[in-house]
Amino acid sequence: MTKPQGLHQTVYAGAFVHSTDLNELEICENGAIGVDEDGKIAFVERNVEDLNAVVEKHGWKSPVLVRAPDCGFFFPGFIDTHIHASQYPNAGIFGKSTLLDWLETYTFPLESSLSSRPKAKTVYTRCVQRTLSHGTTTAAYYATAHAGSTNLLSDVCLQLGQRAFIGRCNMDSLAPDWYKDSSASTAVDDTRETIAHIASIDPEHKLITPILTPRFAPSCSSELLTQLGKLHAETGLPCQTHISENIPELELVQKLFPQYSSYADVYDAHGLLTPGMVLAHAVYLTPKEQALIKARDAKISHCPASNSSLSSGCARVRTLLDQGITVGLGTDISGGYSPSVLEAARQAALVSRHVAMTDGDAAKLSVEEVLYLSTKGGARVMGLDAKVGSFDKGLEWDAQMISLGVVPEGGTMGNVDEGPVDIFGWESWDERVAKWVYNGDDRNTRAVWVRGHKVHQKP
Amino acid sequence: MTKPQGLHQTVYAGAFVHSTDLNELEICENGAIGVDEDGKIAFVERNVEDLNAVVEKHGWKSPVLVRAPDCGFFFPGFIDTHIHASQYPNAGIFGKSTLLDWLETYTFPLESSLSSRPKAKTVYTRCVQRTLSHGTTTAAYYATAHAGSTNLLSDVCLQLGQRAFIGRCNMDSLAPDWYKDSSASTAVDDTRETIAHIASIDPEHKLITPILTPRFAPSCSSELLTQLGKLHAETGLPCQTHISENIPELELVQKLFPQYSSYADVYDAHGLLTPGMVLAHAVYLTPKEQALIKARDAKISHCPASNSSLSSGCARVRTLLDQGITVGLGTDISGGYSPSVLEAARQAALVSRHVAMTDGDAAKLSVEEVLYLSTKGGARVMGLDAKVGSFDKGLEWDAQMISLGVVPEGGTMGNVDEGPVDIFGWESWDERVAKWVYNGDDRNTRAVWVRGHKVHQKP
Repeated sequence: MTKPQGLHQTVYAGAFVHSTDLNELEICENGAIGVDEDGKIAFVERNVEDLNAVVEKHGWKSPVLVRAPDCGFFFPGFIDTHIHASQYPNAGIFGKSTLLDWLETYTFPLESSLSSRPKAKTVYTRCVQRTLSHGTTTAAYYATAHAGSTNLLSDVCLQLGQRAFIGRCNMDSLAPDWYKDSSASTAVDDTRETIAHIASIDPEHKLITPILTPRFAPSCSSELLTQLGKLHAETGLPCQTHISENIPELELVQKLFPQYSSYADVYDAHGLLTPGMVLAHAVYLTPKEQALIKARDAKISHCPASNSSLSSGCARVRTLLDQGITVGLGTDISGGYSPSVLEAARQAALVSRHVAMTDGDAAKLSVEEVLYLSTKGGARVMGLDAKVGSFDKGLEWDAQMISLGVVPEGGTMGNVDEGPVDIFGWESWDERVAKWVYNGDDRNTRAVWVRGHKVHQKP
Repeated sequence: MTKPQGLHQTVYAGAFVHSTDLNELEICENGAIGVDEDGKIAFVERNVEDLNAVVEKHGWKSPVLVRAPDCGFFFPGFIDTHIHASQYPNAGIFGKSTLLDWLETYTFPLESSLSSRPKAKTVYTRCVQRTLSHGTTTAAYYATAHAGSTNLLSDVCLQLGQRAFIGRCNMDSLAPDWYKDSSASTAVDDTRETIAHIASIDPEHKLITPILTPRFAPSCSSELLTQLGKLHAETGLPCQTHISENIPELELVQKLFPQYSSYADVYDAHGLLTPGMVLAHAVYLTPKEQALIKARDAKISHCPASNSSLSSGCARVRTLLDQGITVGLGTDISGGYSPSVLEAARQAALVSRHVAMTDGDAAKLSVEEVLYLSTKGGARVMGLDAKVGSFDKGLEWDAQMISLGVVPEGGTMGNVDEGPVDIFGWESWDERVAKWVYNGDDRNTRAVWVRGHKVHQKP
């Protein structure tokens, strides 16, 4: 672990890349971004020829200087809008299962075992360090049903410096006896306990924010959903859950909640379909549900790797975006196999091509679009777009420094592992970024900052 | 580059994993594999308790001992049955293109530029070193239309110790004027030149074998296909091409070759559909074509990453396997974005799940199956199953040593990059292998051997 350092005025100089809009990736080859003692972006300069002149212009005296590598750039930190920290040890373990049997076979047993604090400490520490190493500066976590180890996850994120939303899983129905809330009221009590804990360690939610987490409709009684809806209204805290991930799940919701017109309506009727709600998956939303979600301004977390792994289906991201619904990306560990948002971006591009095979070329997501979804889109999903997601004056410095390997004449690989991306020198900047998206990994993420603090550096 | 060392009797001790059949992965926790001075497997012992006793039993005196890491295993080298070495610099660069415009926009300009020997040297050296680092011990390469730089690729593979099939691209039709063979006869002459070159550097084809390479039917005249068919019969050399990758391509073939009943029939009528033919893609084969391919015992290279990237479609691998057709995996750089066969295996699993979404669960490929396709299946595709693909007595030692990261109590990551796979200690061996397949990368490939020579070691 890299300990957060004290903050000095710092100038990040060199190339930077960030999304200004869904389709627009700004690539600035000679930039200088000034970050102040509060970790906020004080200035963004482009076409810099004389760095000293820039520093002087802003009246800064001897700031710390951090230079991007020659073949590299600063990029906003990734935002993972859906990840189960508790399932991290199962990454890659799912066999040929689909959602409902996957939950029973792999997921509930592992989550249940995290009642053990030492085990939870090991799992959460590794999960948070891993995601930081992949450039994830903000994560919306599901923990487990245990208040104690959920609080431990909050502690770990605060200690390691990751911006996080921490949700205790609420589940008083349709779960094994050995892993469920005993009633709606104990579930809400335990959830309040996790809210209180975060209030005690990070009262202003500078890094850690509680997030209300009904697991998904089938695992919650109507009573529990009602109480969580009230808590949502009372506290103004954000909320996260799953929606419309696979077909047997849809049928189950219809059977369990026959009085509601749709899966989305179940959440809406319980006061949970609001601008503060993050809905993961959204593979099979009907046009009516999409319209309702748009009307309520609820957000969607697209989890492409998970949807392929569990053969859930293909979310129609283009359709959602065309309707003005806010979408971000989720790794969905361990329905998804990888803790990397870069991998989620890659899978979003590939899954959109599978959609294109049936729906036509318009469905394809570009490199620019998947990078938007993984940063600024994610920030909007989490209600953080006034704080992070791009490099604009006044935002906080949540960023990663990317370096790409340079192939020397002759082509021979050296003795240093420069990561999996090979730049030959004739590529345009757009092409370099595309190569990073399709072949890059955590080796290309040399350093990571949250709120101006360095929270990860490549060994 | 790691220089091949002189060979001594060597015992590879510890866990080993290999495919015995499509569905059967043998995981031997305590094994010992003896490799003789010729790089051949002299013995395979299981349930080894006393290594010295094993060595004595076989009458070996002080062999070199190579131990698998505690949380690791020996695994057969990967076999990439379809990769364009010449397109390696474009890995990840394809935008929203599909096959035919992708060829025009990205591929032909790059390939054409490899008429420059220094550029070809740089590109091929890096491509071969990269694929070795990913554990690819055998690759079936497409070079370019240039005999000179094709020969250079043969030299590079021989020098770096990779087992390779080297094909000069034959294309006298439907290609840009600035990048095509001027006639069928010059194409065949140039191809003969590459065959002669390999005969001069590796006369017994111990490592390097020429492979006849009509690019694909649309870029070859009937005359050229006829001559290559004759050369195939005359020399007995293997052959590789593309088939049925995307729909506009099918239509083009129908238009260019109206007298033939199908795409497969075009190759068959020219004497090219034989047991020595490797057909890449095979996404849209009709049942009749599948039956013809089966009858001719031609082989198929499945390229899942490429088929998703270029939104070509989803090959029906289960259907092909059920009919007894021999299938292996190809990275198809740079239709595919990654030079890693492990990534191809992962994508094969994911694409099969996309097929399952429409065709039903039987389409899903398991971890065991994709590992078979990437090793023993690939060996059968390349006609090498009597030499490599698994760990059996008499086969050559083409292998990789895999190590997985071990998470210590407390979970903290150390200062050494142990790769992306985290093993917590409670996983079964099957689960460890699954974690490797879904999250592993070249960092987990600590060392690679071909014919008993070490050809790569992690820096």
